[in-house]
Amino acid sequence: MVIVLKPNPDPQQLAALRSWLAAHDLTVHDSVGVTNTLLGLVGDTTAVDIEMLRAMSIVQDVRRIQEPYKCANRKMHREDTVIRVGNATVGGGGFAIMAGPCSIESEEQITAVAKAVKAAGATLLRGGAFKPRTSPYAFQGLREEGLKLLLAAGKETGLPVVTEIMDISQLPYFDEVDVIQVGARNMQNFELLKELGRLKKPILLKRGFSATLTELLMSAEYIMAGGNEQVILCERGIRTFATDTRNTLDLSAVPLLRTMTHLPIIVDPSHGTGIRSLVKPMAVASAIIGADGLMVEVHDHPEKAWCDGQQSVTPEAFADIAAACRAVLPHRCREEMNA
Amino acid sequence: MVIVLKPNPDPQQLAALRSWLAAHDLTVHDSVGVTNTLLGLVGDTTAVDIEMLRAMSIVQDVRRIQEPYKCANRKMHREDTVIRVGNATVGGGGFAIMAGPCSIESEEQITAVAKAVKAAGATLLRGGAFKPRTSPYAFQGLREEGLKLLLAAGKETGLPVVTEIMDISQLPYFDEVDVIQVGARNMQNFELLKELGRLKKPILLKRGFSATLTELLMSAEYIMAGGNEQVILCERGIRTFATDTRNTLDLSAVPLLRTMTHLPIIVDPSHGTGIRSLVKPMAVASAIIGADGLMVEVHDHPEKAWCDGQQSVTPEAFADIAAACRAVLPHRCREEMNA
Amino acid sequence: MVIVLKPNPDPQQLAALRSWLAAHDLTVHDSVGVTNTLLGLVGDTTAVDIEMLRAMSIVQDVRRIQEPYKCANRKMHREDTVIRVGNATVGGGGFAIMAGPCSIESEEQITAVAKAVKAAGATLLRGGAFKPRTSPYAFQGLREEGLKLLLAAGKETGLPVVTEIMDISQLPYFDEVDVIQVGARNMQNFELLKELGRLKKPILLKRGFSATLTELLMSAEYIMAGGNEQVILCERGIRTFATDTRNTLDLSAVPLLRTMTHLPIIVDPSHGTGIRSLVKPMAVASAIIGADGLMVEVHDHPEKAWCDGQQSVTPEAFADIAAACRAVLPHRCREEMNA
Amino acid sequence: MVIVLKPNPDPQQLAALRSWLAAHDLTVHDSVGVTNTLLGLVGDTTAVDIEMLRAMSIVQDVRRIQEPYKCANRKMHREDTVIRVGNATVGGGGFAIMAGPCSIESEEQITAVAKAVKAAGATLLRGGAFKPRTSPYAFQGLREEGLKLLLAAGKETGLPVVTEIMDISQLPYFDEVDVIQVGARNMQNFELLKELGRLKKPILLKRGFSATLTELLMSAEYIMAGGNEQVILCERGIRTFATDTRNTLDLSAVPLLRTMTHLPIIVDPSHGTGIRSLVKPMAVASAIIGADGLMVEVHDHPEKAWCDGQQSVTPEAFADIAAACRAVLPHRCREEMNA
Repeated sequence: MVIVLKPNPDPQQLAALRSWLAAHDLTVHDSVGVTNTLLGLVGDTTAVDIEMLRAMSIVQDVRRIQEPYKCANRKMHREDTVIRVGNATVGGGGFAIMAGPCSIESEEQITAVAKAVKAAGATLLRGGAFKPRTSPYAFQGLREEGLKLLLAAGKETGLPVVTEIMDISQLPYFDEVDVIQVGARNMQNFELLKELGRLKKPILLKRGFSATLTELLMSAEYIMAGGNEQVILCERGIRTFATDTRNTLDLSAVPLLRTMTHLPIIVDPSHGTGIRSLVKPMAVASAIIGADGLMVEVHDHPEKAWCDGQQSVTPEAFADIAAACRAVLPHRCREEMNA
Repeated sequence: MVIVLKPNPDPQQLAALRSWLAAHDLTVHDSVGVTNTLLGLVGDTTAVDIEMLRAMSIVQDVRRIQEPYKCANRKMHREDTVIRVGNATVGGGGFAIMAGPCSIESEEQITAVAKAVKAAGATLLRGGAFKPRTSPYAFQGLREEGLKLLLAAGKETGLPVVTEIMDISQLPYFDEVDVIQVGARNMQNFELLKELGRLKKPILLKRGFSATLTELLMSAEYIMAGGNEQVILCERGIRTFATDTRNTLDLSAVPLLRTMTHLPIIVDPSHGTGIRSLVKPMAVASAIIGADGLMVEVHDHPEKAWCDGQQSVTPEAFADIAAACRAVLPHRCREEMNA
Repeated sequence: MVIVLKPNPDPQQLAALRSWLAAHDLTVHDSVGVTNTLLGLVGDTTAVDIEMLRAMSIVQDVRRIQEPYKCANRKMHREDTVIRVGNATVGGGGFAIMAGPCSIESEEQITAVAKAVKAAGATLLRGGAFKPRTSPYAFQGLREEGLKLLLAAGKETGLPVVTEIMDISQLPYFDEVDVIQVGARNMQNFELLKELGRLKKPILLKRGFSATLTELLMSAEYIMAGGNEQVILCERGIRTFATDTRNTLDLSAVPLLRTMTHLPIIVDPSHGTGIRSLVKPMAVASAIIGADGLMVEVHDHPEKAWCDGQQSVTPEAFADIAAACRAVLPHRCREEMNA
Repeated sequence: MVIVLKPNPDPQQLAALRSWLAAHDLTVHDSVGVTNTLLGLVGDTTAVDIEMLRAMSIVQDVRRIQEPYKCANRKMHREDTVIRVGNATVGGGGFAIMAGPCSIESEEQITAVAKAVKAAGATLLRGGAFKPRTSPYAFQGLREEGLKLLLAAGKETGLPVVTEIMDISQLPYFDEVDVIQVGARNMQNFELLKELGRLKKPILLKRGFSATLTELLMSAEYIMAGGNEQVILCERGIRTFATDTRNTLDLSAVPLLRTMTHLPIIVDPSHGTGIRSLVKPMAVASAIIGADGLMVEVHDHPEKAWCDGQQSVTPEAFADIAAACRAVLPHRCREEMNA
């Protein structure tokens, strides 16, 4: 961390700053320039509150050199984290495929979709039971009942299941769920993250609508700091001025995140584009750039889907997508990071 | 709502769409063009799932004409909503001033600030007890203890208090809190919103980092649909490419929201800019364009604040800001909407 | 085009609107709802000024159904446009690779790079002579002198050359240039676009920092409406809140643009990410999703480049990128549009 | 400027970097930390190419401490720049009002509007002759003919005129124009800016759709570095995800720019919001926060305007807006910067 002092800082305030830094076990190296003096801090600055330093009247600017996350940091943990759940594996060079309907609608629907996606090569079954919807008047998911149907479909097909939690109070229903998803709107629901940090269960953390990569990793850090190191990151599109697609899928985040963290990174091209015909090209692109997997919305009758039908693909289309992804895996552009 | 059909729609699917619409009590008016046929829907379309319609293969596009919110809609409720809390009033032509520290740090601090802001003209006392922080290693607030200190300071000064809730599980601590704040990160924490809809207590709802005005109103609608009509909206800056300020304060949202909704609208220039010297001009601008109030971070020693010190002002500066706002109230540009 | 009238429109104004529409050869189909009347317009609405209609006091909203571009529209021209320049081809299923330095710096440099990229498989040589730089104090390019060096290097290697024009007054120098590039900052320099529309030479049009896809196509339309139909579109990243990369590369724009237009679409992963290590994965992703080509910055000594060295790759790295792209071409996810 | 070196930099490369810095008359102060060494540069770093430094393999990061602009910098020129044009003054505590139609449409129209805005208190007459339009099929302005009409209306009313230039080739027509406007789309048309830098005439420079404040000042610097110091900056809204308004008016940019530069800063609430009813509140807000003036679109029959009618106000509404602005001037929140 580097503190840039304003020209001619008040000596008393500077002395106070120096003792504060010393009290936090930070060694200070001065660099005196013609106009500004720089203080280089040596030590663990993770817990230093950069906002507080910036508020001081003798300080012009503060810059971090070290990342503010530790547990999630690739520098502290060179090896890729590999998460095993049932027969599936996420991270470390494989390619996990999570597929299923946006909303669980009925036993018939989830069972039919589960069988279809398994046959097509999905390795996990996704399905929404608790649904975050912009409108209070829209379908809110089958909730507890939906979870039961999802778990049954998972058992019948042997697929581990992944589904979204919206609030701590729903946790008791998630006992048998294999992977708990935190949605984009809850990426900074810190109380929920802390609670999930107490579990021993993989968490799928979706990037918020307007979250930077560092913020995404800080949210992962909330979970990991609590002791749960099984976090899967998910790029699902960001909100920009560009409204031709529902969101702007930020694919370059995938190889960039791989240099920043050892956690697995998957892509959700369904939400990332919101347009059915774009799911396949963006899925294949995700595979080729080294993503650790995909999350795809599949519905047996997308036109009758209770939500997000516009971006759902049929089981047949999904089979084609999964096959196309598998076909490009030998050509993957995925730099080895463990060295 | 207008449904634009693709050219030459399949007759069977069109018949199915027509029966689905009829089953939802919607009357359909056809408008046959040379290339496309339009279906104009008449009836209450609030609960119609626009996504589902868009997913149909015969549908090219769907456009809403009516707003998807009812309770919050100015059209359904011409009169400004006025919220009374203790001696303070929010909405309807007054100018409420909520002031206090970002974080409650100690009894001395909150009491000193409370007295100072009261003397300077604040009408409500704000203070953070449960603090959403990007880093798990940053100060997380004094929590329950902080709430007690805030309530005591409120009692001592006679100011009603406003403070942020981060999770449903914290609700029991909020019994005596006058106004419950939902932060920007939780604007779409729908389970929390539903729970707050069951209370009979004013809710201060902050706009999310990347929320449109319609999304903000839909979140208010979640609270109101549950029976709690006391919602105060707060513009606090949005996230854009422009990083010269912490956020981009979207001031034109204030007069625009007034045409859309009858709910009170306040502005938070502290978070909206993140820069101390910009708080005064943006506060005065908020007053002049007809905002129903302000939320300002005040700290007796901003340089020692445990969070957000960079944007906090001293009690002296706050007194100057409050006086400047009062001075311009007679010149307010606030169109009468009740007519 | 659909005009949504406000409830109870003034009859005289409505009559005036109807005659105006009739005078523009548009037939009007009314659709009377309970609250609003819709007017569906039939005819060529390309030249209808949507802003003017919106300004009328009886009009609530206006929606386009047909695209505002004609020459660039895939609907009017099903076949992919294929542009031939020297031995190179852009569009129609091939994969053009434009490579070279950000700035032409010397005869040695441009010749060395030209030979290296040709050997590695580049099909066009790029190089900047007129350089748009944010700072007036930064290197502005070798200008006329640079163009001569570029043309010489092109001749020596047999590669057609592509280089940027910044102003109409520079046109006389571009006589022998094979493809003229319009940079992102000039995408809406309409006078320049009109002038380029008078040429019989391919134009490479880069997407503006904050341009929608429709705006990009409207700028192409400026060139095409003048008679020059040889336009190559280039996705080069957009400006968003996300600053981990220099820009956010909007890859899903590529398959989406293919449905909107018949023009070739290439990707610039160098500017799109601004980070050297991301060029390869994003280049390969571009190839796999069906882009018609790439533009890549290559420098023999990136560390000594006079601009954009941070995103330039060495000739060796470029050879690896080009080979990786070629390897995935058989697996391309590129839907046939000509049918 | 601070250069952060990567851990264990190659000694030979470090020596090369040091000689390069010395050759640029920069003194280097080392600050050796446990992991990273920092090099603090002392001297004029304006012309140092930060991109080039970042491209070096031993460099981890580079941070500017000094601003990259000199002529426009408030630090180099404490006094507000005051621009005098005819009887009007822009900057230094006055409040200039530029008003007139988006497009000049006829002699009757521009003369009528000119008289009306003069009577209402406008100090300059604006009007578009050369019009940048997204569509090549939309009205492109009356061009030379329009300029003549504008100049005549200016003479008749005694108001200096301001109008937009789109290309260097149009310069000969601008001889008698008092203030030349550079539109948002041309903010980084550097060749045009350089040419305008050779004039002795005020230039009104509009902020680009996605330009940071530093980029705006760098574009001003292009003009000033050429010798023309009469630059007026104009905030006119930026492009964000928020589409409730045409643009997001970034009002906090005004007081922030005042700390960065001595140049006058005006606001265009017409383009900034795109909604007629928002022009008045945002105009008054601009006056109160210390803007040096306004640019407002006024049309005698907004419903018949050939462009941007939706955001134009009538002469009566303009008179009300101008009066409201004048009324708040005594209450302005405009910090003295000259001290």
